[in-house]
Amino acid sequence: MEAVSDAHAPVVYGLNDIILCHTSISHVDGHLGQYRYRDYDAIDLVNNCALEEVWCLLVDGELPSPARRARFADELAELNTVPPALAGLLPAVARLGERPDGIGWLQTSVLLLARSLDWPSVLGLERAALRHQVLRTLVTAPVMLAALHRLRQGLEPVPPDPALGHAANLLYMLTGEAPPRAHARALEQYLMLTAEHGMAASTFAGRVIFSTGADLGSALAGALGAMGGPLHGGAPTLVLDMLDEIGSPEHVEPWLRDRLVKDERIMGFGHRIYRAVDPRVEVLRRLAGDLGGARLDLARQVERQAAALLDEAKPGRTLRANVELYTALVLEAVGLPRSLFSATFALARLAGWSAHLLEQHTGNRLIRPVTAFAGGPTVPVPSPAERGSTNG
Amino acid sequence: MEAVSDAHAPVVYGLNDIILCHTSISHVDGHLGQYRYRDYDAIDLVNNCALEEVWCLLVDGELPSPARRARFADELAELNTVPPALAGLLPAVARLGERPDGIGWLQTSVLLLARSLDWPSVLGLERAALRHQVLRTLVTAPVMLAALHRLRQGLEPVPPDPALGHAANLLYMLTGEAPPRAHARALEQYLMLTAEHGMAASTFAGRVIFSTGADLGSALAGALGAMGGPLHGGAPTLVLDMLDEIGSPEHVEPWLRDRLVKDERIMGFGHRIYRAVDPRVEVLRRLAGDLGGARLDLARQVERQAAALLDEAKPGRTLRANVELYTALVLEAVGLPRSLFSATFALARLAGWSAHLLEQHTGNRLIRPVTAFAGGPTVPVPSPAERGSTNG
Repeated sequence: MEAVSDAHAPVVYGLNDIILCHTSISHVDGHLGQYRYRDYDAIDLVNNCALEEVWCLLVDGELPSPARRARFADELAELNTVPPALAGLLPAVARLGERPDGIGWLQTSVLLLARSLDWPSVLGLERAALRHQVLRTLVTAPVMLAALHRLRQGLEPVPPDPALGHAANLLYMLTGEAPPRAHARALEQYLMLTAEHGMAASTFAGRVIFSTGADLGSALAGALGAMGGPLHGGAPTLVLDMLDEIGSPEHVEPWLRDRLVKDERIMGFGHRIYRAVDPRVEVLRRLAGDLGGARLDLARQVERQAAALLDEAKPGRTLRANVELYTALVLEAVGLPRSLFSATFALARLAGWSAHLLEQHTGNRLIRPVTAFAGGPTVPVPSPAERGSTNG
Repeated sequence: MEAVSDAHAPVVYGLNDIILCHTSISHVDGHLGQYRYRDYDAIDLVNNCALEEVWCLLVDGELPSPARRARFADELAELNTVPPALAGLLPAVARLGERPDGIGWLQTSVLLLARSLDWPSVLGLERAALRHQVLRTLVTAPVMLAALHRLRQGLEPVPPDPALGHAANLLYMLTGEAPPRAHARALEQYLMLTAEHGMAASTFAGRVIFSTGADLGSALAGALGAMGGPLHGGAPTLVLDMLDEIGSPEHVEPWLRDRLVKDERIMGFGHRIYRAVDPRVEVLRRLAGDLGGARLDLARQVERQAAALLDEAKPGRTLRANVELYTALVLEAVGLPRSLFSATFALARLAGWSAHLLEQHTGNRLIRPVTAFAGGPTVPVPSPAERGSTNG
C-alpha cells in the first residue's frame, strides 16, 4: 500500500535543534561548560546569593536590592498557607499506592492547590495575578511534599518555621528538627544550582500546556510529569545503588570494567549538552567534600577511574561525571530520604519553570507542530461480516 | 546592550508547520474538509460503527471482527473498577474549590489512578502492559467523572451498569436513569466524532511528557491540562450563553451585526485547519436536528446569518460554523450538564491520546527543542550594597 504523506519538509524527530523562541531566562553553553541565569553566571550566583535572591532574579528578572529582598521575603511568608480543605485531603493521598512517589505527590499537590483556589485560565490574566500564583506554589509545594512524606510514615506533618529559610525549612518539616547550618546552606546551594537549565523537556511540556491558555497548576503538573520520566529527571538514587553495589575501593576498577565490557551504562556519567565539564559537578563535588559522608572517597575514586576507563572504551566522547553523581551524595549527606531525591530536584526547578511560564505568558502563541501521515489510501468501512477473521 | 544569540536558524514560534513525526493514527485534510482515523474516513466510522470498534481501531490499529470485538468488550468490562482507596478520596476532591471543574476532576482522577496502581515509567514497559493501562483509564475515567459530579451535588455515585454501552453508561451514572436509546446513540456518535484529530496541542503535550519515559498517568494528565486551555479545548458552553443572550430569531441579525461592528468574536465559527467545511459540523447539525431541543431553530438561524455576515465583513476568510456550535446543542439535548461539556470532549479524546502514546512508545525519542538567548553579556554578581535602588 502506498503511503499518503503530507510532508513538504523533513520530519524532525525530537525537534532537535529547532529553535522554539527567544528567552532571556537562561543560557547553557555546552562547549564552554558554563550556564547562566539571565545576565549572571549561575555558579557566581550559587556562590554569592541566597535562594530568595535567585528566585527573585528568575521570576522578576532582577537581583533584588536589600529593601526589595525584604519585601519579597514578606510576600513569600504571607503566601505560605495550604488551604485547609486541601490539607485535609493529604493523609488519604499519602496512603495511595505501594511505593512512595515524591514527584507524583508534587504533581497531585500542585494540581489540587490550583483547584482549591479556583485558578482560572491564564488568558487575559494580569501578570501580577500569575506571579502571585507562582510564588504561592513555590512556597507551599515543599510544605505539601514534606507533609505527604511524614503522613506516609504515620507521622504528623510539621508546619514550616517562619524563622528558618526555605532550604532549612524543608529539612525541618521532614524531621521536626532544625538542621545544622552547613546542611541548610548546602541544600540551598543545590536548590539554586538546579533551579533552571534552559529548555529541558519538563520546561517545554509546561510551556506547551500553558500556550493553550491553561491554568498554572495544569502547566506545572505537566512539567512535573515530564521530570518524572527517567530520560529527563534522571535517577540520582541509582548512583547510591551503584556505590552500594561496588561496596569498597578495591572493587571499583573491576566493577567498572565489567560494566563497560557488557556495554552497560555507568550511572552519573555523560550529558547531552556538556561535552566536557558540567559546571554543576564542580560545586556539588565541593559540597559533598565539605559535608563528608561514608561514600565520599568511593565516589571520588569512581569519578577518577570511570573517566579514565570511559576515555579508553569510548575514545573521543569525553564522558565525565554529571550532576547526578554528587547530587546523590549531597542530598544524602544533608539528611534527605532517597525517596525524595527526584522531588527535591523538582522543587528546585519549580523556580525555573515559573520564570518560563511568566515569559510564555507575554506574547503567547499556541505551540503545536504537525505530523506526516503514514497510512494508506482511504478505504470504506467494511461491515462486521466482511471483516476478516485475522483479528478474530 | 548587545544581545547574545545562539540562533543559527530562524526561530519557529509555535512550531508552526514543523513536522514532528510520521503517524498512522489520523490525518486531517483542511482543504478537502475530511479527516481520517487510520485508513477510514472518520464520518464513515461514526455513521457505521460502535464506540468500542473505534476504540479498538485507534488503540489496536484494526477494526475488530465480531469475535474480536466481543473479547475487547470483555477486557474493558474486567478493567472497569476504581481502586477502593481512590474511590474513598473522591468525596473530598469533589468539594475542593468554588466552581465545579470537569477537566480538573479528570486530571486529578487520572493522576490518582496511576498513583493508586503504581504505574511505573514506561521505559522498558511491554506494549501489552501499557495497553492494559490505557484501556483501564478509558473505562474508569467516566466512572470517576460521574462520581465527582454527583458527589459535588451531595448525591451518592451511581456505579456503571454492565448491561449498558459506554455512552449510555455515562448518562446513567450522572442521572441514575437509563437514557433513551436516541440520547445514548447521539452521545456515542459525538464520542467517536471527537475521539481523535491529529496533533492537537493536548496530544502534543502528552507525547512530550511521555517521551521522557514518564508514566501514562502523567502524560494523560498533561494532555488534559492542555485541553483545559481555552485556545485548545474551546468553550462550547459559551455557545449556549450566546444563544441565551440573543434570545429570539428577530434578534439574531442585529446582535450579530453589533458584534461584527465591535470586531468581537462570534462563538462557534472559524477553524485553524478547516478553511471551508468542518466535516464534524454536518454530523452534529444532523444529530441536533434529530434530537430537537428548544434552541435548535435559533442555532440554525445564527449559522446561516453569521456565515453571510462574516463573508460580508471578512471577505475571503470563509468563516463557517465549527464543531463547538452544534456540540453545545447535542450535549445539552442528551442531558449533560454544561459544567461537563469540556470534560465530555476530553473523555472522547482520551482514545486518541491513548493511540498517540502507544505510537510514541514504539521507537521513542526525547522531544525537546532549543531556545535562542536574548540576554546581554555575562556580568559579575554585584554585592547587595552595590545593587541599585531602582528595584528597591
